[in-house]
Amino acid sequence: MDPSACAKGVLYGVSVGPGDPELLTLKAVRVIGECPVVAVPDIGSGRQTAYSIVRSLLEGKRVIDCSTPMSRDRARAAESYDRIADDICAVLDAGESVAYATLGDASVYSTFSYIRDRVAGRGYATEVVPGVTSFCASAAKLGVSLCDGAERLVVEPGTAAGGGFSPDATRVYLKSGSRLEKLRADLAERGELDDASMVSDCGLPTEAVFPRFAEADLSQGASYFSTVIVKRRGRR
Amino acid sequence: MDPSACAKGVLYGVSVGPGDPELLTLKAVRVIGECPVVAVPDIGSGRQTAYSIVRSLLEGKRVIDCSTPMSRDRARAAESYDRIADDICAVLDAGESVAYATLGDASVYSTFSYIRDRVAGRGYATEVVPGVTSFCASAAKLGVSLCDGAERLVVEPGTAAGGGFSPDATRVYLKSGSRLEKLRADLAERGELDDASMVSDCGLPTEAVFPRFAEADLSQGASYFSTVIVKRRGRR
Repeated sequence: MDPSACAKGVLYGVSVGPGDPELLTLKAVRVIGECPVVAVPDIGSGRQTAYSIVRSLLEGKRVIDCSTPMSRDRARAAESYDRIADDICAVLDAGESVAYATLGDASVYSTFSYIRDRVAGRGYATEVVPGVTSFCASAAKLGVSLCDGAERLVVEPGTAAGGGFSPDATRVYLKSGSRLEKLRADLAERGELDDASMVSDCGLPTEAVFPRFAEADLSQGASYFSTVIVKRRGRR
Repeated sequence: MDPSACAKGVLYGVSVGPGDPELLTLKAVRVIGECPVVAVPDIGSGRQTAYSIVRSLLEGKRVIDCSTPMSRDRARAAESYDRIADDICAVLDAGESVAYATLGDASVYSTFSYIRDRVAGRGYATEVVPGVTSFCASAAKLGVSLCDGAERLVVEPGTAAGGGFSPDATRVYLKSGSRLEKLRADLAERGELDDASMVSDCGLPTEAVFPRFAEADLSQGASYFSTVIVKRRGRR
């Protein structure tokens, strides 16, 4: 019996950063290079953001489409994660390792955590390659320091904007998309709009940087990949 | 007159990640490669962490020592930042660009923000290259997802451990160092110790991973570069 037939592949969650392919780490490039199969979460969607970041590394590789429905229906999402785990485990069973390309960092609001839980739960080896988050990349574009000294940083999705309020912390709202108008109204009500800045599609060809969130034109709808940073002007 | 004598250099804040040189981004490697001068914050200290990360990229470059005192005396710190800004501006005036190597990400508790404020305030061009934070790298090592769904993430320095308390958020305490015993006692008092994990010196040869913070031996003193993550076990 061929011993290599027994060795199972490893699932790598490879963080590919928010948009600019130059923000891939050396480790991400190496791991993708070493894996014969690359799983891309949004290959079937209109955006293909993760795919566009790793495209130049895919020559000669098999690409698995791991798109998931953007649904609030938990059962439907769970079913979709199960199916993706099935596809990935079939590859691992054949002894091939899989690099799952995930936007930003794999530990911050990434579908990868749901996939990893399932694959690890079935006894396969998994590993995460950390990456650059969209909020660090957006802060860099804006020239804002997220936290200094003893300042606290709070990160939350735009959908949580109405929730807890931490006036003394720097706050980052991710993936605000359709909630941006609501978020802007909330910030204005709290007298914080002048402290807010935004980057949409950070590092992508469609990138837009707004040092003043108040001046962003939201009438045409805003990108799902919008990051809003609220930090007191005097403390930047 | 030689026109190149008029062109001033650019100050780049190059995030070099928490420890493993493989977590440098492609952009960090390129920018360091293009700058004739590299500023390293801790070259004179015992740790030389940033220096060790970029060491292989320094051949043929001039290295400026930018160590700062670990002091709570604000006047002394400000004086030290002024001196570093002077050194950097002298290089920029000569038309040479400077890559300031900063641990983790330049926007998260980095001395670079103080240096940049001074250099930008004097009218020089500055740019930040974002990088991998220690908390993303630590989460990857631990196999913990920092936030899923609508969960909030709170990042703060270990010195703030006694401050605000966000029981529903995932919390990250950075650079806890000498405060680890106090932090552990606080978490135990709140019944959260079982939810806490820790990584010290993530990505360095001295790295230590503690899936259970409760089991870390703190009797020998702990590294300044310790990251504690508190996330409810049921939600990992």
